[in-house]
Amino acid sequence: MGPHPAVAAIRLAVRRVLHDILTEASTEHTRARVHERPFAPLVLVACSGGADSMALASALAFEAPKLGIRAGGITVDHGLQPGSDLRAEEVALRMRELGLAPIESIAVSVGRDGGPEAAARDARYAALDAAAERHGAAAILLGHTRDDQAETVLLGLARGSGIRSLSGMAAVSGAGGRYRRPFLHLDRHTARKACMEQSLPVWDDPHNTDPAYTRSRLRHEGLPALEKALGKGVVEALARTAQLSRDDADALDAWASQVETSVRDASGLLECAKLYALPPAVRRRVLRRAAIEAGAPAGSLFARHIEEVDRLITGWRGQGAINLPGKVVAQRQGGRLVIRQG
Amino acid sequence: MGPHPAVAAIRLAVRRVLHDILTEASTEHTRARVHERPFAPLVLVACSGGADSMALASALAFEAPKLGIRAGGITVDHGLQPGSDLRAEEVALRMRELGLAPIESIAVSVGRDGGPEAAARDARYAALDAAAERHGAAAILLGHTRDDQAETVLLGLARGSGIRSLSGMAAVSGAGGRYRRPFLHLDRHTARKACMEQSLPVWDDPHNTDPAYTRSRLRHEGLPALEKALGKGVVEALARTAQLSRDDADALDAWASQVETSVRDASGLLECAKLYALPPAVRRRVLRRAAIEAGAPAGSLFARHIEEVDRLITGWRGQGAINLPGKVVAQRQGGRLVIRQG
Repeated sequence: MGPHPAVAAIRLAVRRVLHDILTEASTEHTRARVHERPFAPLVLVACSGGADSMALASALAFEAPKLGIRAGGITVDHGLQPGSDLRAEEVALRMRELGLAPIESIAVSVGRDGGPEAAARDARYAALDAAAERHGAAAILLGHTRDDQAETVLLGLARGSGIRSLSGMAAVSGAGGRYRRPFLHLDRHTARKACMEQSLPVWDDPHNTDPAYTRSRLRHEGLPALEKALGKGVVEALARTAQLSRDDADALDAWASQVETSVRDASGLLECAKLYALPPAVRRRVLRRAAIEAGAPAGSLFARHIEEVDRLITGWRGQGAINLPGKVVAQRQGGRLVIRQG
Repeated sequence: MGPHPAVAAIRLAVRRVLHDILTEASTEHTRARVHERPFAPLVLVACSGGADSMALASALAFEAPKLGIRAGGITVDHGLQPGSDLRAEEVALRMRELGLAPIESIAVSVGRDGGPEAAARDARYAALDAAAERHGAAAILLGHTRDDQAETVLLGLARGSGIRSLSGMAAVSGAGGRYRRPFLHLDRHTARKACMEQSLPVWDDPHNTDPAYTRSRLRHEGLPALEKALGKGVVEALARTAQLSRDDADALDAWASQVETSVRDASGLLECAKLYALPPAVRRRVLRRAAIEAGAPAGSLFARHIEEVDRLITGWRGQGAINLPGKVVAQRQGGRLVIRQG
């Protein structure tokens, strides 16, 4: 008798990603001609002790040896709750019991930039990046599920800043494609079920149910209400929207990057007439790139800023200079658009 | 003392749209050299008697004469509730009292295609189209607000079929840009307030609060829960998403249309190698267009169909023919993709 369907599902998802990693890593390896020792790439799992990442750790521990991959685990102690250090030690122990090695528990200090959720995330990824370097890991697996993806799309939707913010999390991201998300097409319920079936104790982070957090409110109130109104397929639809939006955003970014030089004059200034002739979606991306290049911080540059700059092209009636974040100024001068730090 | 801010807001929104209509119509008129009678285009308002369209009717009645525009009104009796005919007569009377002329109350019979909401909409637009032709109207104004737009974006999101379905309603749509939506940037509350301030009685359609209707559930449960989780700016963010998605979808459609001939061989067949080289977002649009051209009904062609056809290009391992709606078949034959009705 085979494993429970939920366990089979998490293993299959991990196996597919390990295959990809192996193919890429062995190409690298052959290219580097490092033949002196047997080739066994290391893959780490980032594990909080929650159901999603515990399921991921268990599937990695099961699948990696069969493919000649070394499998280790990292748990990050954010130090945000009393006893979080003991908690992290316990998660490390669980991973060791699964047969993963090396195992590391890393304590980080969380700052305040961008709110509590963003600050915790920044600290976590910095620690994971450092761990990957230290251990020479080929990849780090993250336990984000389709439900997390749906929540991320809704959070992006609330920003109203266009399709890039609707694209959610990528299956492959980070430096050199370091981060992989094998469960992005799997639902949270499957991960939890797989833990139960394997008798893996899981830890429910109280932050996940704390209504002080936007994502938690979305998970426990926003999304259920949306499902009640629109039907059960909402999570899947949001995840599909993420993928389609990502591809669309990539194509439009490529287009903008491609036309960028053709809309500049010999001295490198943007020509208003040529910008005018572009489709609005492409023009706005060219303008956004130019503003960022001039020093505007991408994170503070909103759709309304770009719209205002765009009106220098499409609704010209002698407007003055427009102030953008990062002390960048955009103004129209003799048929040219000048965007620079002022 | 000027009018109440809500009344000023609805009038300004209508004035802007009337200016556009006047500019376009007088260009047409000059081009047609019809100088024998004074030029006064007719603009109709589609009015259900609800707050949004009553506010729109009142603003049209106020603004049109000042611009030399004739203003009339249409109300459609869907015949879905007992007494709906009397209701329609009452709305017609209200519009007459506002000084609009001509006024017409049109009874339609609602079919069943696509569910109750879609069937009612189809019948309504068919009646409005016919009325516009009959009266020689330059435009028909519709009372959709920013809140309606936000709901439409969420309904599109639930389909998960990409950014075109996130683009909501256009400010200008229909044959020759017949339909105009002056209130697309105005909230529902402003329209209702404007009616109160002008002592205009409004009718609350019981369908709008009937939980049997998806849009009603979204309005009264889904959106409020989403606002509670994500903050009050959700409606505005959704409306902005609509505009950005529309522009993005237009640009990508233009791209797909532009490359279409370059990816076909001399006999007009799609070449797999050339399709492979396109960005995924553009390739999927080319494939979708080809399927529709071959006879697949656009409304039944979902993202998953196109993904499957796409795998003939990106994941070729000798798959068989793929069946698409409308008896259209897609198959790969000797480096060519053949899509035709089978």
